[in-house]
Amino acid sequence: MGRVEDVFEVVHRQRACRRFSEDPVDDGIVEKVLDAATFAPSAENRQPWVFVVVRDDERRSAIGALTRQAWEGGGRAHSEGRLSPALLADVETGAQGGVAGAPVLVVVCGDTRLGDRRVLAASVFPAIQNLLLAATALGLGSSLTTLPLVFGGDLASIVELPTDVLPMAVIPLGWPARPLSPPRRQPVTEKAHRETFGTPW
Amino acid sequence: MGRVEDVFEVVHRQRACRRFSEDPVDDGIVEKVLDAATFAPSAENRQPWVFVVVRDDERRSAIGALTRQAWEGGGRAHSEGRLSPALLADVETGAQGGVAGAPVLVVVCGDTRLGDRRVLAASVFPAIQNLLLAATALGLGSSLTTLPLVFGGDLASIVELPTDVLPMAVIPLGWPARPLSPPRRQPVTEKAHRETFGTPW
Repeated sequence: MGRVEDVFEVVHRQRACRRFSEDPVDDGIVEKVLDAATFAPSAENRQPWVFVVVRDDERRSAIGALTRQAWEGGGRAHSEGRLSPALLADVETGAQGGVAGAPVLVVVCGDTRLGDRRVLAASVFPAIQNLLLAATALGLGSSLTTLPLVFGGDLASIVELPTDVLPMAVIPLGWPARPLSPPRRQPVTEKAHRETFGTPW
Repeated sequence: MGRVEDVFEVVHRQRACRRFSEDPVDDGIVEKVLDAATFAPSAENRQPWVFVVVRDDERRSAIGALTRQAWEGGGRAHSEGRLSPALLADVETGAQGGVAGAPVLVVVCGDTRLGDRRVLAASVFPAIQNLLLAATALGLGSSLTTLPLVFGGDLASIVELPTDVLPMAVIPLGWPARPLSPPRRQPVTEKAHRETFGTPW
């Protein structure tokens, strides 16, 4: 196993994976990742997260079709000229079947009976980030995708959600098809302000 | 320093702190926590997060007053009967000055020029979760508070946000006034479903 990686190393290594090998991901690993997700904070600690774990070929294909449709029907046009050619090509690969090719797709939802719509995102996206970090720590590839939500009603049908449970993201989990390069980010000094907006950190 | 704590240990230990000691938190630690935040994923990697780090007594008091006002003007009534007596008392302590008593308040915002409103939460709350985990790893107390957003316009004025930068959360950072008990969460089996909603994990 080698040495223990601390949380800062995992945070600095996490990045989107959009192409997966066909090697299976067993239930024990999925459960470990979901367990991490459930330890996130939520409004009133009501834990409104819902995870539907999809492995079935037909369902994954159907989710992949929604993703492709959202990409070709507007996503690509929106991103062209905004993304670097390399990132655009990677997102294209993901949208055209890479993401849906992961052996596991986790449809992450919010239960409106446990959190009203105004605070639902504040209570579900922290859990998603825990999920992504746990996946990274275990060597799994993952990414936070929201493209299929363009057809949220169809997505909800595929995994048979009741009307008060809203789909919020689709997270592919699988072993990366190739090594991932490090993430690129702007430094804190460009994002932090002192006391008031505009006062440099 | 002792042994290195892995990401799962930090995830399992993270919980809201609402009462802080007066010991200072130096800039180096704040920067380390914000650096972790900036490594979160975001739509198109546009990194729309903005952090305003507030230490000034008057500004912290003003944010504390908004929090108290939101609590007394509706927050408490909403939470009474929904929270356990222990959690209600803790939230009450926080809202009545505990949170604002932290030496550092980070007002986390989303820049609408870098992410449209529909996807802003999906791009900012993962960064907030990285921030909270990094704080936990360093022994800092923290919590994700959204109460002051009831008066978002006033909060924006206090830290002088331009109109296209929206406040999304206030995170207190400080050393815990007393040891934190472990978080309580429902197990994965109550939150995960297999293939379709309602099929037990």
